[in-house]
Amino acid sequence: MRSIDLNSDLGEGYGAWTMGDDAAMLDIVSSANVACGFHAGDPATILATVRRAAERGVAVGAHVSYPDRVGFGRRNMDVTSEELTADVIYQIGALQGLCAAAGTRVSYVKPHGALYNTIASDSRQAAAVIAGIKAVDPSLVLMGLAGAPILAQAREAGLATVAEAFADRAYTPEGTLVSRRQSGAVLHDAEAIARRMLRLATEGVIEAVDGSPLTLEAESICVHGDSPGAVAMAARIREVLLAHGVKVAAFGGKA
Amino acid sequence: MRSIDLNSDLGEGYGAWTMGDDAAMLDIVSSANVACGFHAGDPATILATVRRAAERGVAVGAHVSYPDRVGFGRRNMDVTSEELTADVIYQIGALQGLCAAAGTRVSYVKPHGALYNTIASDSRQAAAVIAGIKAVDPSLVLMGLAGAPILAQAREAGLATVAEAFADRAYTPEGTLVSRRQSGAVLHDAEAIARRMLRLATEGVIEAVDGSPLTLEAESICVHGDSPGAVAMAARIREVLLAHGVKVAAFGGKA
Amino acid sequence: MRSIDLNSDLGEGYGAWTMGDDAAMLDIVSSANVACGFHAGDPATILATVRRAAERGVAVGAHVSYPDRVGFGRRNMDVTSEELTADVIYQIGALQGLCAAAGTRVSYVKPHGALYNTIASDSRQAAAVIAGIKAVDPSLVLMGLAGAPILAQAREAGLATVAEAFADRAYTPEGTLVSRRQSGAVLHDAEAIARRMLRLATEGVIEAVDGSPLTLEAESICVHGDSPGAVAMAARIREVLLAHGVKVAAFGGKA
Amino acid sequence: MRSIDLNSDLGEGYGAWTMGDDAAMLDIVSSANVACGFHAGDPATILATVRRAAERGVAVGAHVSYPDRVGFGRRNMDVTSEELTADVIYQIGALQGLCAAAGTRVSYVKPHGALYNTIASDSRQAAAVIAGIKAVDPSLVLMGLAGAPILAQAREAGLATVAEAFADRAYTPEGTLVSRRQSGAVLHDAEAIARRMLRLATEGVIEAVDGSPLTLEAESICVHGDSPGAVAMAARIREVLLAHGVKVAAFGGKA
Repeated sequence: MRSIDLNSDLGEGYGAWTMGDDAAMLDIVSSANVACGFHAGDPATILATVRRAAERGVAVGAHVSYPDRVGFGRRNMDVTSEELTADVIYQIGALQGLCAAAGTRVSYVKPHGALYNTIASDSRQAAAVIAGIKAVDPSLVLMGLAGAPILAQAREAGLATVAEAFADRAYTPEGTLVSRRQSGAVLHDAEAIARRMLRLATEGVIEAVDGSPLTLEAESICVHGDSPGAVAMAARIREVLLAHGVKVAAFGGKA
Repeated sequence: MRSIDLNSDLGEGYGAWTMGDDAAMLDIVSSANVACGFHAGDPATILATVRRAAERGVAVGAHVSYPDRVGFGRRNMDVTSEELTADVIYQIGALQGLCAAAGTRVSYVKPHGALYNTIASDSRQAAAVIAGIKAVDPSLVLMGLAGAPILAQAREAGLATVAEAFADRAYTPEGTLVSRRQSGAVLHDAEAIARRMLRLATEGVIEAVDGSPLTLEAESICVHGDSPGAVAMAARIREVLLAHGVKVAAFGGKA
Repeated sequence: MRSIDLNSDLGEGYGAWTMGDDAAMLDIVSSANVACGFHAGDPATILATVRRAAERGVAVGAHVSYPDRVGFGRRNMDVTSEELTADVIYQIGALQGLCAAAGTRVSYVKPHGALYNTIASDSRQAAAVIAGIKAVDPSLVLMGLAGAPILAQAREAGLATVAEAFADRAYTPEGTLVSRRQSGAVLHDAEAIARRMLRLATEGVIEAVDGSPLTLEAESICVHGDSPGAVAMAARIREVLLAHGVKVAAFGGKA
Repeated sequence: MRSIDLNSDLGEGYGAWTMGDDAAMLDIVSSANVACGFHAGDPATILATVRRAAERGVAVGAHVSYPDRVGFGRRNMDVTSEELTADVIYQIGALQGLCAAAGTRVSYVKPHGALYNTIASDSRQAAAVIAGIKAVDPSLVLMGLAGAPILAQAREAGLATVAEAFADRAYTPEGTLVSRRQSGAVLHDAEAIARRMLRLATEGVIEAVDGSPLTLEAESICVHGDSPGAVAMAARIREVLLAHGVKVAAFGGKA
């Protein structure tokens, strides 16, 4: 039976502020990218999220970020390698502590926002992130953009990796994401998106923006949950996958 | 051979700001209470500190605090139990991650500043801290003020505890610290302090402020390192202990 | 023609996080208590809020807080007077800068959350807040709880004051708020609340929790806007006031 | 009589942490670039600094920064123009409030660290800073690197500007700073530096790194105070200037 992972960003409230509907999403996804406090997530919010993830058998990943709460980790920062490595270790460790308290564990690391985009191709910062992960626990898996250079770099450094596709993004024929500055970069039709993801899960193919078929090896699909519409879209993707015999489960059977 | 632990607050810089001479103190103490980022300590500073501690065989404790960097954790905050437990878990976990990266581990927890003082007698907040420690790792030892109610409360909850005395503080005949608001609360004569600590280590007795002998069971002595004079005083205490056959070593043989 | 002020807490988003519907509330209230960055409010969010307030002729007040963003300023902190005075000045100044950029000005100061409650009766912290306000601009008005000691203390110190009532809170016969720990402390019936506020505005009387009539001198009514229901309640209060000939306008005609 | 301004970064402590010797430097310089809380400076520290500046007749400038305390404002951040403008306004306003409390005022704005370097040539971010300054108070002067494009851009936008030279930095024959990555970029000989600054003040000429004379129009000289050696160097520069009849005074006679 075919299987694919669904992942989403969770635990992104902060104190009195909420973001998204974690409870709803934890019934949909198989992997939760949980904020670690640097772009979002205070300890009590994170703890509540990983407890629910543990209850529902959802795998937990460390959604590490630049230290930029007011910018939600969306702004590039030219941090030194030493700072970045230590920041990554600190965040993973903090989440590991909260996971231990919740009876689960951190299975993987998925960098967030600007850090995610930067390390996709910036080998210096990528190396600093990889070093941080290995220093805490070399068995942690790095999740990254399917096709991005960081995945090969991480494997050369001895880390296991998981490639992900973005459910609501258009792809170029070369397999990169269409820039958000271009029209059509973000897809909105839940039904069409669910069909795309079904084809990706069953054939390993996604239709590029020019209509050509693109072979994409992705073990995980990133879905959003920051609005009611996003939750509905994620639910529809899951539904279509299940209806066509594709199991939704954390990669590597981890939870 | 008699043995006593010397502990000090370390890793209390923040980014470009430094506090104390960590390198000097790590040659003097056997246990380092390392800041976890809430009152002081950024990840890179903490990592450098625990690396040096590991090199010198100094045990590492989590110096957890209220979330109050601008107040250096010195101001009481009426946090909820839920918040406090999660904050403690987060900080211990973060330090565990950095210790793993440095090839050492967190052996104990010593709350900092206002939190230390509050939980000495506030059983609600004490219970929240104890719950946080147990949730991460029930083998962690809680360090607290010799004679304070929290130590018994922690033992009843199943935690091991270590009682500490303050090298430079005067004691009442009842065994509590003389309030800082009273003159004579803080001692300054390094030689006299070293003799007091020697007597404490060898006889289990300290002279109270009224001259009466006070029996104090303390396995650890807290020394300061935030000024050149403080480092010299700590060095003198160590020197006098060693000269009289008292070994300076982490409690429980942990490192 | 009778007139009363309606005030509400606004600008309480932070970066990517939102709170309440500022745009809707700025069509309802005459005075906006705008967050200054210590419990909520980043500069861009605050600037957008004061611009809208300026456009709609809504008076702006500085909603100053303890420095506790993760706790949303709801937790007591035993700050020193020196710290508190400087914190108040800093926040008022920052908001004045943003108001200048928006073509309006800060008319009054209403402390937030735990600080509001503490200074209602803690004369030391009240004095520190009053000193901060006077140091920036002695013509600023202090808004506080009708009947609270701080109002007299502020007037003795030379500040003008405005007393406010809470639309959705029950009052004791003595004129204090019924504690939130007691049932019935918070009112929920929008229609009944609107009638209470109409009576307060026209007769200066509010019915206490025991049914007795309570004379309350309040020039402003605090309404909430942090949920769709709260916005609707605030709108209904305004509607009932206007329908009975009570004008809704900032106290002192300020804007 | 010739006159030149000496400026230095002050108020850069944070809570329990100190940086540099503000008291000593305020006896040396004529202009103080005071931290505004984003890279350094808590309200109480800033207030103490501007009070001393007011007592000694030293002009106050707003040392605005990216919001990056742990990085001390030294790391580039790709902030949006809207965020940067609002951040600049907030910081200037906060410092204006504290200056009002201290009986002085903000005379100028000198961006700090990475922001200073970036806007020297990045016209988008420069425009955002200029817009922020103008929005608060168009009479504020912008201080920037002598010869940098931002100075012309600011003047075109209607702001007055002041060009500064760096006392301890080597210059290329083209008038730019020698990169810190090259040896010889930072000068250390206090006597030679004092002579260079005397020549700059009296002839408008500084010797470039290749020995050629470089004409540099600078109304202010930036000196450091973050170490005892730096304070001594600043004092020596002042001494040599005074001994040769050059008055040390804030540009524009402002204070």
